Amino acid sequence: MILHDKLNWRYATKKMDPSKSVPQDKLDRILEAISLAPTSSGLQPFEVIVVTNPEVKAKLRAAGYDQAQITDGSHVLVFAAWDNYTAERIDAVVAETERQRGKSETLSAYYDRLKGMYLPRSADENFEHAARQAYIAFGIGVTAAAFEEVDATPMEGFDPAKVDEILGLRARGLRSVTLLPLGYRAAEGDWLAGMKKVRKPLDELVKQVA
Amino acid sequence: MILHDKLNWRYATKKMDPSKSVPQDKLDRILEAISLAPTSSGLQPFEVIVVTNPEVKAKLRAAGYDQAQITDGSHVLVFAAWDNYTAERIDAVVAETERQRGKSETLSAYYDRLKGMYLPRSADENFEHAARQAYIAFGIGVTAAAFEEVDATPMEGFDPAKVDEILGLRARGLRSVTLLPLGYRAAEGDWLAGMKKVRKPLDELVKQVA
Repeated sequence: MILHDKLNWRYATKKMDPSKSVPQDKLDRILEAISLAPTSSGLQPFEVIVVTNPEVKAKLRAAGYDQAQITDGSHVLVFAAWDNYTAERIDAVVAETERQRGKSETLSAYYDRLKGMYLPRSADENFEHAARQAYIAFGIGVTAAAFEEVDATPMEGFDPAKVDEILGLRARGLRSVTLLPLGYRAAEGDWLAGMKKVRKPLDELVKQVA
Repeated sequence: MILHDKLNWRYATKKMDPSKSVPQDKLDRILEAISLAPTSSGLQPFEVIVVTNPEVKAKLRAAGYDQAQITDGSHVLVFAAWDNYTAERIDAVVAETERQRGKSETLSAYYDRLKGMYLPRSADENFEHAARQAYIAFGIGVTAAAFEEVDATPMEGFDPAKVDEILGLRARGLRSVTLLPLGYRAAEGDWLAGMKKVRKPLDELVKQVA
């Protein structure tokens, strides 16, 4: 299917061409796909920070072990998960859902139970849960970039505390979990471009209980 | 783009038609897409257990707060992350990569550094990292099901310890993180079918640093 073609086309781009920029309409569609990602109870417990400012990108690169894609790509998406679940955050999701679907006793009862479950947990446990949801959206963002024939580098190799500091995330109740530089491959300078994509044989990754 | 159409078509199916079964070719393409998901350093640190056995599905349903999709869907995918990183697991990835791409000093040096970083960490920290990678593949699995017009219910509401026990996962160094029942919606019995998909306004989810 076409999804396989796109997933096979993409790779973790190691060298981006700094002279090329991702057009706004492509970026918008990538962000729209990210917003369509499923998340637990529909909370979407993360934000995506789109960084184009050259000085901020340079700081992010320094926090990202000097990986050049951060400044050579035209955009850097920073996926930042909620540092905790709070009543206010969950209530805002309920309010938005009611705004779009109308009031529902079932709905508010569901989210009341959710608050009963999440709010007593530690901030770390809730952050880990939120981070997992961000990863769903991150994967769909990588996929969406491929559909737009935009190159991307899924990136965990950075100092989250420094990225949080650069973008002022902690003050907003957020913690960075992944970076996604977007741009266009400079294939001649990229050792990974054109290399065989390696995956485990499917019968190692998948087991049957029939 | 077509990805949006598919993501808009899907929803967390609440009622599956037990008389319908996902054809093998569709299942195979969904699993293939899952295997193409990007993961940190290409480790693919998870397995996907495909459960079709009715007795095992009944046990999973009991461990899943009696959610009927687990038995009404024809297949249940269980995403199970590695409980820890080990030298053996990482070495196996290196061996597979060398098998497919040929030997490389750079490659083995990279993974030696990775072992130096991961192996001293706690099992819990490594499991959380592996779980995040599984979530990338989980999101792509949900997306792939939509491309096949197969309904799916992304599910975290289950007792992981019980699922691990039912499938014997801990003995194999795995811990369940998500379930994904696959099947076909029984739209007349599904309160969520046809309801408006609710997402935050994009300017709340996305912030610009320009």
